[in-house]
Amino acid sequence: MVNASPDLRQQIEARPILQPRRGLRDSPIAAVILTGGEVDAVAGLLHLRESQRFTLFATGRVHEALQANPIFNALNPAFVHRQSVHLDRPFDLPGGIVAELFAVPGKVALYLEREGNDLAGDVEDTVGLRLSSRTGAACYFIPGCEHLPAGIAERLRGSDLVFFDGTLWTNDEMIREGSGTKTGQRMGHMSVADPRGTIESFRDLDVRRKVFIHINNSNPILLDDSPERAIAARAGWEVAYDGMEIVL
Amino acid sequence: MVNASPDLRQQIEARPILQPRRGLRDSPIAAVILTGGEVDAVAGLLHLRESQRFTLFATGRVHEALQANPIFNALNPAFVHRQSVHLDRPFDLPGGIVAELFAVPGKVALYLEREGNDLAGDVEDTVGLRLSSRTGAACYFIPGCEHLPAGIAERLRGSDLVFFDGTLWTNDEMIREGSGTKTGQRMGHMSVADPRGTIESFRDLDVRRKVFIHINNSNPILLDDSPERAIAARAGWEVAYDGMEIVL
Repeated sequence: MVNASPDLRQQIEARPILQPRRGLRDSPIAAVILTGGEVDAVAGLLHLRESQRFTLFATGRVHEALQANPIFNALNPAFVHRQSVHLDRPFDLPGGIVAELFAVPGKVALYLEREGNDLAGDVEDTVGLRLSSRTGAACYFIPGCEHLPAGIAERLRGSDLVFFDGTLWTNDEMIREGSGTKTGQRMGHMSVADPRGTIESFRDLDVRRKVFIHINNSNPILLDDSPERAIAARAGWEVAYDGMEIVL
Repeated sequence: MVNASPDLRQQIEARPILQPRRGLRDSPIAAVILTGGEVDAVAGLLHLRESQRFTLFATGRVHEALQANPIFNALNPAFVHRQSVHLDRPFDLPGGIVAELFAVPGKVALYLEREGNDLAGDVEDTVGLRLSSRTGAACYFIPGCEHLPAGIAERLRGSDLVFFDGTLWTNDEMIREGSGTKTGQRMGHMSVADPRGTIESFRDLDVRRKVFIHINNSNPILLDDSPERAIAARAGWEVAYDGMEIVL
């Protein structure tokens, strides 16, 4: 200790250590499920490297993408267990929750695109997640979906809650406003307001609660007072926000 | 457009597009200089993938670490130029600023640690940065430094401003408080208040302004009203904060 007066020394020694729920570095995160390998899906893992125990669930393809990047070794294998899961096979999470991953139309992560490769990638590259509880309540989480095939529409029909890809308002909005060179579809996303877009595709699916997630900063539904937000709300859609809590 | 009433349609079409300084996605960042390959030094690059033009300067070793992680391909090579720089050879930045990297005692990035490897790594793994302007003013940026050899102390002597490694208050604080299992030195950091620590090592170097950076959340100097902060301030040290602006 440098130059601490006896007085300061006493203050330092007497200070109580603040205690979170269990130890100084407690985290309530018991499991992480990845729905793809794109930067916005996986970069947050780099913040979970504080020697907290959790299980990391993803398809084999997405685990391969992580394993190809040594930076994710920052997740200490003594604490973080990487578990590969198969599509369409339910698996258990802590707290009695059952999860299931299923293929949705999408694309390979941008940083894995290679000339000549099929951008659509493998069925395991972009997936949707179903979570259900002991009470039978279920929700779906689908942050990227290039179009809505009949099979997925039927899966979602009548469900309690769906979080869904709200990337763009219209397919060409980034090109029109000059903020990008790609359409939504080229990026693996259907758009909210297009004629065969999300609002239209969900109109007759009787989903009790519908929430847009994964919203690009060019999408005007992000503005509380935009006419686009009003259109989405009138069609029964909410817009997710940081700190949103859900009770099913 | 789905179900937009003529009224809403008119509002949408009449809305002016807000313009930042140059186009919708302007960024004032013209160059990024890395002082190491550790997660906290490089993860922020993943936020700079919006097709903004900048040059990424780093040693060959640090560029190798990035290249070994395909996730950084998210930095489109059409916009981001990766430039390797040699130690102790000044190079030009935009705006008439001259930069120079030099070796400091440190360690290889945690995620690159391998059993049997020398943790100290290569001289290019952990570096300090010198920035100088046409006016002759200069500052140093050294976020990780395991101890202060005489050569580096002499380099810093009498300088205008030094940003320096403030990771821990004492070498064993994470072990004592139960938030970690490693000493500061094992992580490649000298500590602020240790007998041969930072405050003592800088005491006679006549640096005009001294600012702690890279401060771990276990270090009590982060608290404005802590006795440790008072000790550091009395020794002429400031504590950096988000949004801090410097005029040299």
